[in-house]
Amino acid sequence: MNSELSSQQIKDIGEQGLLERLQRFCPPELIGDDAAVFKTAPGQSLVVTTDVLVDGVHFSNLTTSPEDAGWRAAAANLSDLAAMGASPLGITVGLGLPGEVRVSWVERLYQGMTECLQQYNTSIVGGDVVRSPVTTLAITAFGQVNPSQIIRRSAAVVGDAIVVTGVHGASRSGLELLLHPELGQNLKDAERTALIRAHQRPQPRLDVLPVICQVLASPCPMPIAGMDSSDGLADAIIQICRASSVGAVLECRQISMPAAFGHWLTKEQALEYALYGGEDFELVLCLPQKSALALVQYLGQGAAIVGNIIPGSIVLLHDEQKKFPDQVLNLSQGFQHFDD
Amino acid sequence: MNSELSSQQIKDIGEQGLLERLQRFCPPELIGDDAAVFKTAPGQSLVVTTDVLVDGVHFSNLTTSPEDAGWRAAAANLSDLAAMGASPLGITVGLGLPGEVRVSWVERLYQGMTECLQQYNTSIVGGDVVRSPVTTLAITAFGQVNPSQIIRRSAAVVGDAIVVTGVHGASRSGLELLLHPELGQNLKDAERTALIRAHQRPQPRLDVLPVICQVLASPCPMPIAGMDSSDGLADAIIQICRASSVGAVLECRQISMPAAFGHWLTKEQALEYALYGGEDFELVLCLPQKSALALVQYLGQGAAIVGNIIPGSIVLLHDEQKKFPDQVLNLSQGFQHFDD
Repeated sequence: MNSELSSQQIKDIGEQGLLERLQRFCPPELIGDDAAVFKTAPGQSLVVTTDVLVDGVHFSNLTTSPEDAGWRAAAANLSDLAAMGASPLGITVGLGLPGEVRVSWVERLYQGMTECLQQYNTSIVGGDVVRSPVTTLAITAFGQVNPSQIIRRSAAVVGDAIVVTGVHGASRSGLELLLHPELGQNLKDAERTALIRAHQRPQPRLDVLPVICQVLASPCPMPIAGMDSSDGLADAIIQICRASSVGAVLECRQISMPAAFGHWLTKEQALEYALYGGEDFELVLCLPQKSALALVQYLGQGAAIVGNIIPGSIVLLHDEQKKFPDQVLNLSQGFQHFDD
Repeated sequence: MNSELSSQQIKDIGEQGLLERLQRFCPPELIGDDAAVFKTAPGQSLVVTTDVLVDGVHFSNLTTSPEDAGWRAAAANLSDLAAMGASPLGITVGLGLPGEVRVSWVERLYQGMTECLQQYNTSIVGGDVVRSPVTTLAITAFGQVNPSQIIRRSAAVVGDAIVVTGVHGASRSGLELLLHPELGQNLKDAERTALIRAHQRPQPRLDVLPVICQVLASPCPMPIAGMDSSDGLADAIIQICRASSVGAVLECRQISMPAAFGHWLTKEQALEYALYGGEDFELVLCLPQKSALALVQYLGQGAAIVGNIIPGSIVLLHDEQKKFPDQVLNLSQGFQHFDD
């Protein structure tokens, strides 16, 4: 082995770089979506996704109660299942804990996870608890989906409308309000509470799955393109375009945001939160125009067509009102934990 | 909440105590075996198990190469599937890594995992990589089993013979030889190598599953009782007895051990390693005498009937040669990571 290569450290190549290096150990057909899918029986595929959360990196007692940390961890994994079109079967929870952690903290964490899971009639089905110098939470969620209803990043085609199932930016703005309570003095109490709630108790959009099938007619006539917006709306659209070898144009004013943003944020700030904030856990779907329109009408409440799939490889942000010049969106501005 | 209770820390109640407290968050029908099982389709159940391994607690660069750490982690999870009678579908790998870890270390870890998995035609199907102050490895394995072939701890009945699928104590003795190379001067090179190999590259006994079905006739006429011996032979028998509300008597001289132990260890030391060493990853099964005999004959190579299931709740170690007085085995002597 080349000595320069062998001394390379994780920090030199980052999370994304390491993941790319590790892909050669995985079957190629399982790479590239929010979760792995494989057929287990006729008419049934198993979907599996996993997340590791580390104290001080992904959650902190300073901004998050253990109940909320648990809810958010469960929600993120359920959202990865929703991103694939899969209904949850259960989650496993692996915990690494310093001996000094309070038992009540762990019970409250489990309480939060369970509250989130119960909304979707699912539960914690197994786990492991070990000693560790740092509190670590490893969740694996698994679900099932009819193979004809799998949502994939790679299925977008030119001409598709890009649908978001709800507003973006809420979770990020809620975090700002928690970190800086002096912000947003013009917000009504109910608005402030709702934004903070969006951060603390995000809702994975498993409820959208039966609606998609209904709108598209059953069995679904073509592969459904999409993913969730856990790493931000910009990231989701860029990932879909990259996997589908297409481009996209987004229209600024069509990106749905919380109404409260108008009482608080500048247009630039609002757009930054909506595009790059992350953790809104909405679905971003690419559908034929007619189906897209039907889905948006059915969902209401922040659902919108935010742009279109175009030829090429560029994701362009366009402002009809010409307040901003057109700009090309790219992943390096996105919400990449490892690089910060 | 009572203030004394709310200030209780993990170290006050230990791993086992915490797991018991957390069971109320899980559906009761999923608790008590090596992995969770649930029905996903007619004639098919999904089995899921998860493990968290922490640098310095469960593995160490001092005694274990990254390849071996990877192999052992994969083997432990495959063994949990074997313990339930399930064939593997795949594993997910969640990694927490300090930025200073070498990329080559991670690649070698994955190499070891993959080598183990390939033996059983399975693979890494997904994962997550995050920044963490301590190297942490969270593996979730999932597999499938025909519901009539599930192995459960709770199915042992009085009169069953207790079968081990291979020798015990090898892995523990291999670790001793790695830590103290000056030990075992009378061992032949091949013996030393084999014992160290048993520690570094343990084999989960997935190969035994088709044999069980063959020996018992298909479809299996009754629930199969058993688990793996990952936490030691004594632990496995005690766990089975507890879950099945029965007792057991073990016969010292019937417990199969590596032949090399005769050139090195005292009888007491050998027995201690075999009963409490752990990580041999054999299966411990409770079967009617005739089936037990047929299975042992089929397997050969260290497979043995080591005792019988009796009424009561006590696990008794008996020495036919009367070298030791009878002793009652209990879990507190077992290999419990958290309590040490």
